[in-house]
Amino acid sequence: MNTTATLSRLFAGVQSDMDQVDVLFKERATSGLTILNSASMHALASPGKRLRTALTLLSGKLNTYNSDKLLRLSVAYEMVHLATLIHDDIIDEALTRRGNPTVNALWGDKIGILLGDYYLAKTSSIIADIEDFRIDHLFADTVATVCEGTILEMMTAGRIDLTVETYFEKIQNKTACLFAACSKGGAILSGASDEQIELLHSYGLNLGIAFQIIDDILDYTEDQSTIGKPAGNDLRQGMVTLPLIFALQDAASANGRQQQVQALLNGAELPEKEIQEVVSWVSNEYAIERSLQEAQNYGNKAREALYHFPASSDRTILDELIDFVISRNR
Amino acid sequence: MNTTATLSRLFAGVQSDMDQVDVLFKERATSGLTILNSASMHALASPGKRLRTALTLLSGKLNTYNSDKLLRLSVAYEMVHLATLIHDDIIDEALTRRGNPTVNALWGDKIGILLGDYYLAKTSSIIADIEDFRIDHLFADTVATVCEGTILEMMTAGRIDLTVETYFEKIQNKTACLFAACSKGGAILSGASDEQIELLHSYGLNLGIAFQIIDDILDYTEDQSTIGKPAGNDLRQGMVTLPLIFALQDAASANGRQQQVQALLNGAELPEKEIQEVVSWVSNEYAIERSLQEAQNYGNKAREALYHFPASSDRTILDELIDFVISRNR
Repeated sequence: MNTTATLSRLFAGVQSDMDQVDVLFKERATSGLTILNSASMHALASPGKRLRTALTLLSGKLNTYNSDKLLRLSVAYEMVHLATLIHDDIIDEALTRRGNPTVNALWGDKIGILLGDYYLAKTSSIIADIEDFRIDHLFADTVATVCEGTILEMMTAGRIDLTVETYFEKIQNKTACLFAACSKGGAILSGASDEQIELLHSYGLNLGIAFQIIDDILDYTEDQSTIGKPAGNDLRQGMVTLPLIFALQDAASANGRQQQVQALLNGAELPEKEIQEVVSWVSNEYAIERSLQEAQNYGNKAREALYHFPASSDRTILDELIDFVISRNR
Repeated sequence: MNTTATLSRLFAGVQSDMDQVDVLFKERATSGLTILNSASMHALASPGKRLRTALTLLSGKLNTYNSDKLLRLSVAYEMVHLATLIHDDIIDEALTRRGNPTVNALWGDKIGILLGDYYLAKTSSIIADIEDFRIDHLFADTVATVCEGTILEMMTAGRIDLTVETYFEKIQNKTACLFAACSKGGAILSGASDEQIELLHSYGLNLGIAFQIIDDILDYTEDQSTIGKPAGNDLRQGMVTLPLIFALQDAASANGRQQQVQALLNGAELPEKEIQEVVSWVSNEYAIERSLQEAQNYGNKAREALYHFPASSDRTILDELIDFVISRNR
């Protein structure tokens, strides 16, 4: 699948508004401080797929599209996402993201902490401009949940006995919660009914869970040239994800592996060859198939929520977005 | 002056509400995550003087006191203040604050980053509960300004040529801006007129500037047993503050000192004796007198704003608070 072509097609109906979000983002991220602007511009240069913006705008299309407020909300979501990436990179001591140097790699941890804080503060200011109390609450609760998810991730790092249940709690709070806030916020600002708001919340949440499972699969199956970070990155960071949990559950195959995996999770300086050995073990296992199956289950839940809306070309796009998220290869 | 006795007297009229703020704070800071609760409880154990709460509540007393909303706003201000202290301690690599170990000293930088983020997110949630758009804007703009002030402080660290003008820009953004938001927020939530809102903003801003100048003086004149951190702490952190700027301006006295000061600001590992030599040089200079004079000037500006309000016992308290801030010895 050609990622860029697929996304261009899916996002065609909101592309001009997505471009507008970029413009607004740059306006709001600007400050009187030179270093802040340099760091902002750098962080903006590797913007990822802008999935959160698309999700917010496309969800708004199912009812009465209110571009002014939807654009602001999208900027806030992209900005809070960027803030968490910047702080995550400091916490993970990551020097690259998608092949580009991180803010902490270029300017150090201190500037990174402050830049993340600044973005968090700025998002509150953007949300305040929307002047909708439901959005105020949604946004504040979302950011707190993302923080809790990140703390849970950190507290469970290195735990070879991480359960499937805790894994899902972690990704729901850290990642899927923001996806859910995008589609729910899009619904709120387009005058959707309470029932529709809840349905779009469910759509985003399940889509987000599927998205993260795929991310965690790709960390084992893709190489640096495609995903922009070395395969097995999660393992090196002590992160236990679904493919590894499933691989370890296969007693016969996992026999004798536990010690090696635990050493890796503990951050032992093992030779690259040995890391790649564990990566191929996980990626050649039925574990990947099972993880993919889980992603598809959540994709189906997202689809179920969507099918309560009448058929429309906009609904079709959101439907195809599920397929994209699951079948993407980066 | 007996600090505790003075504050007890000044805060007597709002003491029960201040206690209520503590209760609410603990409620809002609680989470399902054990580590977060431990860190929160630790951070709360050294609460400082609760000046921000008192300022918010006392300002609200000049008009129609609305305890429900004022309490929430106070909790948000204390929480954002705590968030910035936690991140500041990481940035400054500080291991103690007021004689107690910092969050980063006990749990490391990573937990500290996340705990600060969590508090920032929680404050947005508390502000959202107030459901007043003016407060939304005030709060968001304040937090962004505090971040900008902190970044400016960091960017100018180690600069022996820091101007008085930049010093004031820094303390206005980093510290005084939050004081201004307290008194302004108190005014807004008590139904003050636009003119009164601006006057109380001016009161808080000038009080905050005076407060920070005194803090910077105390860093030179007090010892660890009183202020809870070693004298000359700012110097060790590369922070150029008003007493040092004034001391350096006296060409005769500063002659030959520049090199030594610059080395200290650069973080050179000089013997403690040499640090204390610079500290006594600054603290025995006319520089302290001049700095105190500046604090008094700003105190007078705060008083001027206050005198536009009719005389009342509540106005007298705010007036005496200025004297307290300037004459405090810790």
